[in-house]
Amino acid sequence: MNDLYLRACRRQPVERTPVWLMRQAGRSLPEYREVRRKVDFVTLMQTPDLAAEVTIQPVDRLGVDAAILFSDILVPAAPLGIEVEFKPGPVIEHPVREAADVERLRADEPEESVPFVYETIRILREQLADRVPLIGFAASPFTLAAYLVEGGGSKSFDRTMGLLYGEPETAHRLLEKVTETTAKYVVAQVRAGAQAIQLFDTWAGLLHRRDFREFDLRYVRRLFEILECEGVPRIYFALNSGHLLSEIRDCGADVVGVDWRTDLAEASRLLGDRFVVQGNLDPAVLMASPEVIERRTRTILESAAGAPGHVFNLGHGVLPRTPVEHLQALIGAVRKHSA
Amino acid sequence: MNDLYLRACRRQPVERTPVWLMRQAGRSLPEYREVRRKVDFVTLMQTPDLAAEVTIQPVDRLGVDAAILFSDILVPAAPLGIEVEFKPGPVIEHPVREAADVERLRADEPEESVPFVYETIRILREQLADRVPLIGFAASPFTLAAYLVEGGGSKSFDRTMGLLYGEPETAHRLLEKVTETTAKYVVAQVRAGAQAIQLFDTWAGLLHRRDFREFDLRYVRRLFEILECEGVPRIYFALNSGHLLSEIRDCGADVVGVDWRTDLAEASRLLGDRFVVQGNLDPAVLMASPEVIERRTRTILESAAGAPGHVFNLGHGVLPRTPVEHLQALIGAVRKHSA
Repeated sequence: MNDLYLRACRRQPVERTPVWLMRQAGRSLPEYREVRRKVDFVTLMQTPDLAAEVTIQPVDRLGVDAAILFSDILVPAAPLGIEVEFKPGPVIEHPVREAADVERLRADEPEESVPFVYETIRILREQLADRVPLIGFAASPFTLAAYLVEGGGSKSFDRTMGLLYGEPETAHRLLEKVTETTAKYVVAQVRAGAQAIQLFDTWAGLLHRRDFREFDLRYVRRLFEILECEGVPRIYFALNSGHLLSEIRDCGADVVGVDWRTDLAEASRLLGDRFVVQGNLDPAVLMASPEVIERRTRTILESAAGAPGHVFNLGHGVLPRTPVEHLQALIGAVRKHSA
Repeated sequence: MNDLYLRACRRQPVERTPVWLMRQAGRSLPEYREVRRKVDFVTLMQTPDLAAEVTIQPVDRLGVDAAILFSDILVPAAPLGIEVEFKPGPVIEHPVREAADVERLRADEPEESVPFVYETIRILREQLADRVPLIGFAASPFTLAAYLVEGGGSKSFDRTMGLLYGEPETAHRLLEKVTETTAKYVVAQVRAGAQAIQLFDTWAGLLHRRDFREFDLRYVRRLFEILECEGVPRIYFALNSGHLLSEIRDCGADVVGVDWRTDLAEASRLLGDRFVVQGNLDPAVLMASPEVIERRTRTILESAAGAPGHVFNLGHGVLPRTPVEHLQALIGAVRKHSA
């Protein structure tokens, strides 16, 4: 049993640095593209056998030290009563714009509303048979709320920011409801078998430090407090958050993911040297040669040397065009240089 | 004659804080939308009378303290021999991907290649008749190069980053050529009548500090050095650059624009208290009420109090959906609270 990842998250001794990659299951793998030739993204994500299959693909192909549930951060919109389509980006026909929209949100039980998530986790634990741990995940409440308000992705997220600035009470009411449902969503993941929970805060980087603290961090913290008694490592990853690191000290996670823009050594210092750090190779490095990949991997391993622990990862998700040999070169470099 | 803007840029005494807004000429103004009903974006930009007309609109409508040439940061692709279409985002059919593509770049004289830019400036100086100063602009070499490599906008800019990481010599050769043409492009703007030059570094925020210094900052600095003997204020604005501010100390500008994510007081400290700062209201604040706009405007004026000078602006461009009354409320608030 390879439990390197869980041990690193818990600051226990490890023989080498564990590694997994955000979006490791996906279009960069030929076997994933093969599955996608037969089914669309939504069907794949909602069909437990198939979702489990693509979750395990990078474990087989790349030898990563953890699997992460194949799913989407918008899944918990369903128990909130919000329907999301993928065309292929997420589109919400009835977004949450006003106080009345917030009041209308539902609070269904995730296990009844999105049972496929939990079934996928149960299948995965059986099929993985402790080869590597399984990571569950969700969006941070702010990030999920931003999608609900915009009705999908956005360049500027001006409706979301307009809500925070103009109607902060409505924004807080929305964030409370989203937090409550997300908490149920991830607690049920742990009870179904997820061995760690990562929160993805994709849009935190839009926020000024003050607004981050008020509208984002406090809900992240609340979620992690609720997760505390579940006993699994809690990982927080906020994209583009170099200006927020000294606030993130208070996030309540065990592990903090750092994007590629900030050195792990500097990030650890800003985080108060109190978190296991995760990251942070720029995914675009994987477009260069194996020699460049190896050199940059070593730099990152060295940069993490002073932190209380390190889980190697990219600074953002694997890019779809990444050659699979380069992913393998990266995993090999981490194994070789961190032993 | 209102020369508040130029005086603030030069650290001379001002009666109140000057204000202009990035993308102040554009879809938020009904008179702009009226012009656009008749001509498309490219025609508008390339027709000097019309480009001058929309450049002046916000001076009339909002009472801003500077006009900025209505144009596009991709215009200097033309003297480099690269054709850009707008559909409506920029699309480059033959992007610059390899060393051979870089060698093939032309170095035409901007005044011959894009004469409409200089004709627009001459018309503007005549029509403005010193009511307010006229700002010229260009993209930073890195930002223009990123568009040339990607062939347009991009979510991840992985081809650009792949070039920097994988073929740094080719990247530098490209950046040198882009810098040379951009230098000619902006020097000619000054000679046609532009009274200040702002460099927009839209994609700097993608870069790690080390790569920013190597592939971006040095070319910005070179451009500003070339501009030095033209005697006009030089403004550098890098979006999403909170993690780069201590590097930006060496940019060689007179004024540094700061996006909304970092307080002006903190930015000024990171910049070594040596630049006039420009910014930095979140454009999404303009989606909220005039009361919220006024309160947030005061906060920003206070935050800038310790810097060697302040030019009020947004932290990014005006959002298309912004109500014109809210723009007016903002200009009124700056006038009222900075006097």
